[in-house]
Amino acid sequence: MNYAISLADIQAAARRIKGYVHRTPIMTCQTLDALAGRHLVFKPENLQKVGAFKARGAFNAVLSIKETSPETLTRGVITHSSGNHAQALALAARDSGCPANIIMPSNAPSVKKAAVRGYGATVHECEPTLEAREATADKVEKATGGVFIHPYNNPLIMAGQGTVALEMLEQAEEAGTPLDAVLIPVGGGGLLSGCTVAVKSLRPGVKVFAAEPKGADDTYTSLKSGEWVPSVKPDTVADGLLTSTGDLTFPIIRDKIDDIFVVDEEEIIRATKLVWERMKLVVEPSAAVTLAVALFNADFKRAAEGCKTVGIVFTGGNVDFERAVALFKTLEVPQ
Amino acid sequence: MNYAISLADIQAAARRIKGYVHRTPIMTCQTLDALAGRHLVFKPENLQKVGAFKARGAFNAVLSIKETSPETLTRGVITHSSGNHAQALALAARDSGCPANIIMPSNAPSVKKAAVRGYGATVHECEPTLEAREATADKVEKATGGVFIHPYNNPLIMAGQGTVALEMLEQAEEAGTPLDAVLIPVGGGGLLSGCTVAVKSLRPGVKVFAAEPKGADDTYTSLKSGEWVPSVKPDTVADGLLTSTGDLTFPIIRDKIDDIFVVDEEEIIRATKLVWERMKLVVEPSAAVTLAVALFNADFKRAAEGCKTVGIVFTGGNVDFERAVALFKTLEVPQ
Repeated sequence: MNYAISLADIQAAARRIKGYVHRTPIMTCQTLDALAGRHLVFKPENLQKVGAFKARGAFNAVLSIKETSPETLTRGVITHSSGNHAQALALAARDSGCPANIIMPSNAPSVKKAAVRGYGATVHECEPTLEAREATADKVEKATGGVFIHPYNNPLIMAGQGTVALEMLEQAEEAGTPLDAVLIPVGGGGLLSGCTVAVKSLRPGVKVFAAEPKGADDTYTSLKSGEWVPSVKPDTVADGLLTSTGDLTFPIIRDKIDDIFVVDEEEIIRATKLVWERMKLVVEPSAAVTLAVALFNADFKRAAEGCKTVGIVFTGGNVDFERAVALFKTLEVPQ
Repeated sequence: MNYAISLADIQAAARRIKGYVHRTPIMTCQTLDALAGRHLVFKPENLQKVGAFKARGAFNAVLSIKETSPETLTRGVITHSSGNHAQALALAARDSGCPANIIMPSNAPSVKKAAVRGYGATVHECEPTLEAREATADKVEKATGGVFIHPYNNPLIMAGQGTVALEMLEQAEEAGTPLDAVLIPVGGGGLLSGCTVAVKSLRPGVKVFAAEPKGADDTYTSLKSGEWVPSVKPDTVADGLLTSTGDLTFPIIRDKIDDIFVVDEEEIIRATKLVWERMKLVVEPSAAVTLAVALFNADFKRAAEGCKTVGIVFTGGNVDFERAVALFKTLEVPQ
């Protein structure tokens, strides 16, 4: 079967985005190792530009278009997103000197719209439905002649996100603790598919495990039932993982990952708080779903039995502090 | 004049503590560069073990005693501190297999006592006065025969903290952005004196600037008046910077730093919030006093006019999240 991306695409992305995005460090934490019962190597992409790994895919897409079709780029890039991809694309466009048109639902928080405008992008508001988003995107595409860049179901985005795994494998080896497995969260599957291709091409013996909230377990259900299902009425604090996988991301995930595990809301909040407290990193709940699996999921512990060192991606840190602290308080034992 | 430490002591400390503490990365942030009007290279010691640079001095002290007098170490180490040094010394003792006795005021938050006990140390409570602290420390010293290790007025502690500057100079040069100046906070002066010796010995042309809260400006007053004064009734959110400098730390600071600048409470809180928001790092208010100077102090801006790249140390991240978020809310414009 032909997949949307290969290792060569990810390696090209790595060369392309070098200097435009941060090479985030890897980090370790003895306390969390003790809780997990194995060595964890963290890749904190909350320290990435715009506070999320999404900068990688967005820069790869924009810079690639700039190489192959610079005249197209002058007409700008377009996406619909109320999350980290919107900010990432806005920044990549600004740094490449091209316009960005971002379609956002009218009910998106005003701070998110302000952040996107802060990077110089034009925000187009629409009704908060998928139909309205797509119709508005079509309209803007026709009006501007710009290029629509999907948040995850796009080979350039997938290849860009795969550079997380390239770096993590290399940095863990440099540190003398090569990875036996990686744990990656799945929403639309851009990060998971990209990282899976990187890991399975370079180090086929390294296991790829996916992590998903129980409240948005469409990929878990798809893989366990053998049939793709969409995300319907997802409900989780991990609001970066609400979307369904796409026709480019899902086949890679279905065919190549080793297993997938889910965690509940309390486990996600508990893991988020541990990262703030013990690692001094501001991460959003979506980013701690992986650690929650490593700490609390018994099936994972069985599946990863031989894995001494596990690489864990923290995806982002864009969270309202007050909301996060309110979530932490829900963990306290009631009087 | 003879100073308490030399470059050789700091280099020995670096060799000694390697592998026991983290080599923290350096980080950069375009948004903060734009606000500061120059390139800032951050050394996030909140990502250090126990969440603060204090791990460096504590490990250097304990490991050094282990080398020179292992039989002394079996009788343990002692300190009085309710802050990061207590946890750091407890961890260093545990990792070296020796007892730690920590004197803490009876009104210290129970979470701080629990954290110290969590590292296996014995906590001795005393009345919350300097006299009671010192009397209790004397008693424990006589009873155990252990070694008292002052939080900052100790050459081994000062040399350990100086390794922050060794790394920062080297990492900034590796990144192709050598430092023109460093900005270091001052409380008791352990970090500032150690870093000053490192910087002025290795790169005499690099300026050393100190940062202090207006509400605890004893070092500022001492340097501007030419006469050492103690810290009397300090009052600031930067609760890691309340103490007076010591007779070992002050002479280095007095003779070798280039200048010192103060910032008010609102500036400290504003800088703290920027680090959380823009760098996704949990830092305590004391840690952001340096950034507050870089962003808001007009005298600093004049003094650092020729300094293209300034290295900034974030000292620690041990803060109650609810308290931090409550401080951030004080910045909001009243309705």
